[in-house]
Amino acid sequence: MSITEVSHRSPWFDDVINDAIERTKRLLKLDDQYHVLFLQGGASMQFCMAPLNFLSDGRSADYINTGTWSTKAIKEAQIQNKPIKVVASSEDKNFCYIPNNISFNKDAAYVHLTSNNTIKGTQFESLPDTGQVPMVIDMSSDIMSKPLDMSNIGMIYAGAQKNIGPAGVCMVIIRQDLLDLSPDNIPTMLNYNTFANKNSMFNTPPCFAIYTIQLVIKWLEETIGGLEQMDVKNREKADLLYNFLDDSSFYRATADKGSRSLMNVTFRLPNEDLEKAFVAKAVENGMGGLKGHRSVGGCRASIYNATGLDAINDLVSLMKEFEKTSG
Amino acid sequence: MSITEVSHRSPWFDDVINDAIERTKRLLKLDDQYHVLFLQGGASMQFCMAPLNFLSDGRSADYINTGTWSTKAIKEAQIQNKPIKVVASSEDKNFCYIPNNISFNKDAAYVHLTSNNTIKGTQFESLPDTGQVPMVIDMSSDIMSKPLDMSNIGMIYAGAQKNIGPAGVCMVIIRQDLLDLSPDNIPTMLNYNTFANKNSMFNTPPCFAIYTIQLVIKWLEETIGGLEQMDVKNREKADLLYNFLDDSSFYRATADKGSRSLMNVTFRLPNEDLEKAFVAKAVENGMGGLKGHRSVGGCRASIYNATGLDAINDLVSLMKEFEKTSG
Repeated sequence: MSITEVSHRSPWFDDVINDAIERTKRLLKLDDQYHVLFLQGGASMQFCMAPLNFLSDGRSADYINTGTWSTKAIKEAQIQNKPIKVVASSEDKNFCYIPNNISFNKDAAYVHLTSNNTIKGTQFESLPDTGQVPMVIDMSSDIMSKPLDMSNIGMIYAGAQKNIGPAGVCMVIIRQDLLDLSPDNIPTMLNYNTFANKNSMFNTPPCFAIYTIQLVIKWLEETIGGLEQMDVKNREKADLLYNFLDDSSFYRATADKGSRSLMNVTFRLPNEDLEKAFVAKAVENGMGGLKGHRSVGGCRASIYNATGLDAINDLVSLMKEFEKTSG
Repeated sequence: MSITEVSHRSPWFDDVINDAIERTKRLLKLDDQYHVLFLQGGASMQFCMAPLNFLSDGRSADYINTGTWSTKAIKEAQIQNKPIKVVASSEDKNFCYIPNNISFNKDAAYVHLTSNNTIKGTQFESLPDTGQVPMVIDMSSDIMSKPLDMSNIGMIYAGAQKNIGPAGVCMVIIRQDLLDLSPDNIPTMLNYNTFANKNSMFNTPPCFAIYTIQLVIKWLEETIGGLEQMDVKNREKADLLYNFLDDSSFYRATADKGSRSLMNVTFRLPNEDLEKAFVAKAVENGMGGLKGHRSVGGCRASIYNATGLDAINDLVSLMKEFEKTSG
């Protein structure tokens, strides 16, 4: 039988899920306060679950708005009438930077932020100092891309499909004190404790997706050699591309220096016709997906963990050639 | 690129999901009032979503309790303080039968039932007459096992992992008038309209699981020849096993005649020691999974669509031999 056929109540699947959890704990250096869970519904379901679980006693939470995904997270707290506060936003400049020097509310239950913004191409270079308030972080697009200081992190969540696996599973890493905040009177499938108490198997989990995470995390640990090594590779890739963009008068990076994403490099050409022609040329050369998200236009190179340095070299060569023939 | 790598915003994936939907509509003879959706979280998430979406205006719903899964569905409505009514239950006889002659409330928003009860081994032979009130049916364990009269069905939901695909996706078939009941002020990912309005792609769907459903449904349509043919095969399998059980004085079927499941055949041996020995003997002969659910004991043969008649013949031969050597 294959992984799509074995029972999730079998010792075979126990080995898969437990190995994925143990490797995650080693890679992120998690202590015993943290639980590694596998949920469904993507990060979008977490936008709903975090306020539902952590704000039942009338407390507020602080949200930082750095783009499309943060905006959605804020909306899902507000739709539940949770009294959250948006303490910082970069909407004034179309989210091209990460706000800093933020004043947080000391009595907030948590601070929510999106560590990497896929659409706008920005990323927190370092996490903010939120004092005693734990952070809840959407890391869907940069989880496992570099080492992480967990000291003030209450929860991480990440749809798997960028860096750690296929679509259909969301990894949640949650600290015990946040689990203790969940009220009893919420639906079972929306309560983090349901997953923590049953090793993510209250009901049938997405077995194939969890199995694939296990394989990817094994590759990260054994082939790449850990998150420090992954970080070196990711920086090398991003530096190559950003240095080329900064030296160019034809191409222009759109995210501010100091806020630039190592995962999603957004850039513009002199005009939209040239952008369209460039994207078409790239497809001809076997490079798909370079069109920017429809909400911002321009171009975007998504260079997640799985992308090699060779692909960036090929892209830069193509960009040079396109400038020569069209510039 | 494989199905686990392509973007869900690509024409390749559009072809996959649209083909799965079209084949489902043909197999179940659905008219244009019905939407075929793919959600995550299994049937357990539907236990929460159905009352959340359909009972926002203070109306009640009728629930029929036929076992473990119905009981959980009832609990998830009650935890939300929805005023539901349990109009029938077979709990008095450990759920060994399907209640009939039920009085339904004419003003109920829906009648909820579990069409097949995996753990107790019972199944509705025909659906009850609920008058003008639409049925909402958990068909996780018998969807696509036989033709279905949709005339009074408002919604079907089914975790895919029994008859139509791998774990990690839940098929929801919903009629337009039930979609119209959802209030605006519920979380986006818990609103059926989110999925209906975006062809199940508001956020990244479980692509691999949907792809596998497409393949299974294609097999049902093209290789099996449709649900009438699937029904013939399923009845032949179940009849063989039930006839053997009814002729035996060693084995005993636990579900009442007229309420017996064609998918899960539950039976006992003269005592628990013999049951344990039989299950061990079966494993030795390559037949796993015959142990009854831990909540009821005994034995259970799950004979979903994918199980062939040969497997039932092998099982009956083994049962005969075991009786001869142990009886």
